[in-house]
Order: sequence, then C-alpha cells, then structure tokens
Amino acid sequence: MRLDTLTILGVGLLGGSVGLAASARRVANRVVGLGRSAVRLHDAITVGAVTEITTDPTAAVRDADLIVVCTPVDRIAEDVLALAKFAKPGAIITDVGSTKGNVARGVGGGLPEGVHFVGSHPIAGSEKTGVEFAKVNLFIDRTTVVTPTTATPAHVTNYVAEFWRALGSKVVVASPDDHDRLLAESSHLPHLLASALANTLSGEAAPFAATGFRDTTRIAAGDPGLWEAIFRANRPAVLVAADRFDAQLQAFRKLLAADDGPGLNHWLSEGKRVRDALGS
Amino acid sequence: MRLDTLTILGVGLLGGSVGLAASARRVANRVVGLGRSAVRLHDAITVGAVTEITTDPTAAVRDADLIVVCTPVDRIAEDVLALAKFAKPGAIITDVGSTKGNVARGVGGGLPEGVHFVGSHPIAGSEKTGVEFAKVNLFIDRTTVVTPTTATPAHVTNYVAEFWRALGSKVVVASPDDHDRLLAESSHLPHLLASALANTLSGEAAPFAATGFRDTTRIAAGDPGLWEAIFRANRPAVLVAADRFDAQLQAFRKLLAADDGPGLNHWLSEGKRVRDALGS
Repeated sequence: MRLDTLTILGVGLLGGSVGLAASARRVANRVVGLGRSAVRLHDAITVGAVTEITTDPTAAVRDADLIVVCTPVDRIAEDVLALAKFAKPGAIITDVGSTKGNVARGVGGGLPEGVHFVGSHPIAGSEKTGVEFAKVNLFIDRTTVVTPTTATPAHVTNYVAEFWRALGSKVVVASPDDHDRLLAESSHLPHLLASALANTLSGEAAPFAATGFRDTTRIAAGDPGLWEAIFRANRPAVLVAADRFDAQLQAFRKLLAADDGPGLNHWLSEGKRVRDALGS
Repeated sequence: MRLDTLTILGVGLLGGSVGLAASARRVANRVVGLGRSAVRLHDAITVGAVTEITTDPTAAVRDADLIVVCTPVDRIAEDVLALAKFAKPGAIITDVGSTKGNVARGVGGGLPEGVHFVGSHPIAGSEKTGVEFAKVNLFIDRTTVVTPTTATPAHVTNYVAEFWRALGSKVVVASPDDHDRLLAESSHLPHLLASALANTLSGEAAPFAATGFRDTTRIAAGDPGLWEAIFRANRPAVLVAADRFDAQLQAFRKLLAADDGPGLNHWLSEGKRVRDALGS
C-alpha cells in the first residue's frame, strides 16, 4: 500500500508511532502532523514522526488520502466531523480510540458526501503518553480491530485494514459494540482493577510491595483523564465486566472462608491455565 | 558474617538462591542441600546452589550452624520441629515462607533446649519454581522480613537478620501477625486478583488481551498448590484485604454508574499517585 498524503491529528505516543511506521515502511509520501500546540508538533518533527506540521486543520487535511484521528475517546467523533468538512472527496478517516461504539454513534450519518469513516483500535501503547515514547515498531505483531457499522462501505473497511497491515499489524474486523464488549473485559477491566488495588494499598504496606504488586498495578500509572473518558464512553460494557469479575472475587471469598482446599486449588489452577495460555 | 555449615531444606528457586548467594559471598564454608528427591538435589549441585547433598536429615543438620527451611508454608513448622531434633546445641533455624503466623504457632515451644527458631520472609522470587531459576543476586536490594515472637531471644533475631544482610538483602523486623497483615495486602491480594481476572477472561476476549492484561495477571501463573497453602495459612488477613479491595471496586462501580466524571478522575488519580510512588 502506498498513499500520497497521510494526516495525523494528535501526534502523541500512538499518532507518532503511526507516523514513524508509515514513513519507515514507505506507506505514505507525506505525513502531516496536525495539532493545537506548535511546541509539541515541533517535538513530533524532531523525532521524525511526521514530515510536515501545521496547526491549521484546513491546510492539514486538504490533500489527505487518509486521516488518522488520535485524540481522546471523548473528542474523536467531533474531531472526525470537523476535519471531514475540509477533506477532499474520496478521503477516508479513521481513529485509534480505545472505545468504538461512542465514536460510531457520534459520527453517525454526519459526514459530507464522498468522505468516509471507519473506526480502528490498534491494541498497542502503554501507560506512557507523548511523542517521545512513539515507536516505529509499535504495531508489529499487535492486533488492530477495525470496526465498520452496517453503513460502512466494504472498500473503506478494506482500505483501513490494509493500512494497518502495512504498518505491521494483524487486523480483526468487529462491530463497534462487539469491540467494546471484548475490550471491556481484556483491557478496561484490568485497568480498573489495577487502580482499585493501588487505592487499597495502605502506606504501612507499601514498603512490602514487590514485583507481583508492581506488575499487577503497572497500568494504574496511565493518564487519569484518558481513562476517565474510556470508562465513561464504554460504561455499560465496563459495568458488565466488573460484575463478572465480582462473581469471581466472591467465589474466591466463599472458598477461602470455607477453607475449601480442593476448591481453592481448582480455582487457582483454572486461573493459571488461562494465564499460561496467553504466554509471557 | 561467616558460618561454617549452612543447611538448606528444599533447594528450589528460593533455597537455591540462598545457597548460591551464601557461597558467592563466602557467608558459609559448606552449603548442604537436603531434600527428598536425589534427582532434584543433583540439579542443585549442578547449578552450584549447594556444595553437598543428602536425603538424610540427621546427616544434613548434625553440623549445621544455620538451617534454612524452604518448604511450602503448610509444611514449614513440622519440618522445623523434625530437623531441630537432630540439630546441635546453639543451632539456629529459620525459613523463607510467605506466611509467618502459622509457622510461629506451629513451632511454638516445641524446640529442644539450645536450638532456636525465628521466621524469615525474603520478599523475592517469582511465579517460577525450581532450582534452575535460582539467582545469586535474588536478594540484593530486596527486603527480608524477620519475624520474632515475644519468646525469641534477641541474639537469634540479630543472627538471622545479619545472615540476610550478608546475602545483600535489607531487613525489616516485624511480628508474625504484622507481617501477615501487611503481606496479605501487598502480596496475597494481588495474587488473588490476578487469578480472579484470569478466571474472568472469556475465550472470545482472550485474543484481545495485550500487555496490560498480561502484566495484571502475570502472577496468576504461580503454583496453585503453593498459593492454596498461602491463602489458607493467612486466611483471616486475606479476607480482610479482600474486603478492603471490594470497597474500592464498589466505589468505582458507583462512580461509573452515576457517570461521575470528576469522581472517577479523582479515584484514578489517587491510584496513579500510589502506583507512581512505587517506581517501575
């Protein structure tokens, strides 16, 4: 795949990694970085994440074949609609947000004729933020979920899937709602548990927190604003996942309260089986 | 510190690391490995974890100045009492178990005249088991909790504390019950949450489990038998820690159900503050 102009709105860890990979793999001739802060855009050009920068949306998207919106999940839909107004006919827009139902609903049927949107979620990143943590190989061997609605033309889904594959990612296609349900369980739930566990730790016990505690709470270091937005955007699915976790927690408490050795062993063995299957 | 004969019962990851560090740092002239399996003892001598091996308890502890019991937490007390019978007057016995109250109560006043015990818990290790994962530097910059009871002579506590410092560890002295309460929160609770989270993951969501899920559940790969014993040995404190966690989980659910943005942000920010303070 080779496109002429790729425009990235929000050149942080994810947007910067898209730009680095697109340049390195010659997927795009020009990579235009769009943002509100000229200072941070300057950082993006310094690390080579983009080839051009601008704070002017019109200039940024005028020639874009593909626009990738990398803003917080509660801003994506409005950013898509705002940029679409300046896009050329045939332009395709996607995003990298961790929630997809709210974005699909927010964009809805609001796009101009000839401009298309389909959501994406590259399951990559970290608790860090900022273009200085962008990595050219961030997407390699990772999975990106592309999330068409029933209204999305097949060629749009295929184009965006092809783009992510060109950056080294595997691609899975799922509806926005299926995405949100599965990610609530595999990503949003671990984040809420890591934060809840960190919040449980007393100052007295903190000196005894070793590797296990650190691993289990690592993602609690993520940006609170980004995660507030993710939880709120995916509220019903996160509450369902929390209920399913709660059932496991209560199952453990019941087994331990009853001092049920074989039951505890079975419960722990099941968890080990699931974890071992994921690999390191 | 330099002692003549160090005897280690159970030469796995922890026992093997004690032996490697004691030899490398010239803390012991002889390191005797005692176990039930001649094959596994042979592995211990191959990796240099011990200088001599035997399956005969009498021969193993006859000349020992210090005996370190590295068996599962539900076996430690009986192993301490069994070996104490063959120990010379003045010998000191310690252990490396993750729970201390059950061991202190199990050993009680059952030791022969002139033989002393004080519990230890080096907060090191991993979800792996076996002498092949033993490391000479396992204790460096880690914390070992030494857990005297009111009946423990000060010289015994000091001797064992000095031993761990000689292996590179920092030492904290705490009562067995304080230890168990603090470790319930900092170690046993994370393990139960990791297992509960692994048990929550559906087969459909598993392909979407990325770094965050893997970090958060890593310790669920630990040995179910060892952890069954730890949870049962520290039952009341683990149930209290689980209750405290549950309160945090319910607080999150309430905030999210109410779509309380500032409340969620504050809750996530508190978790980030705690996690950031722990360092990477």
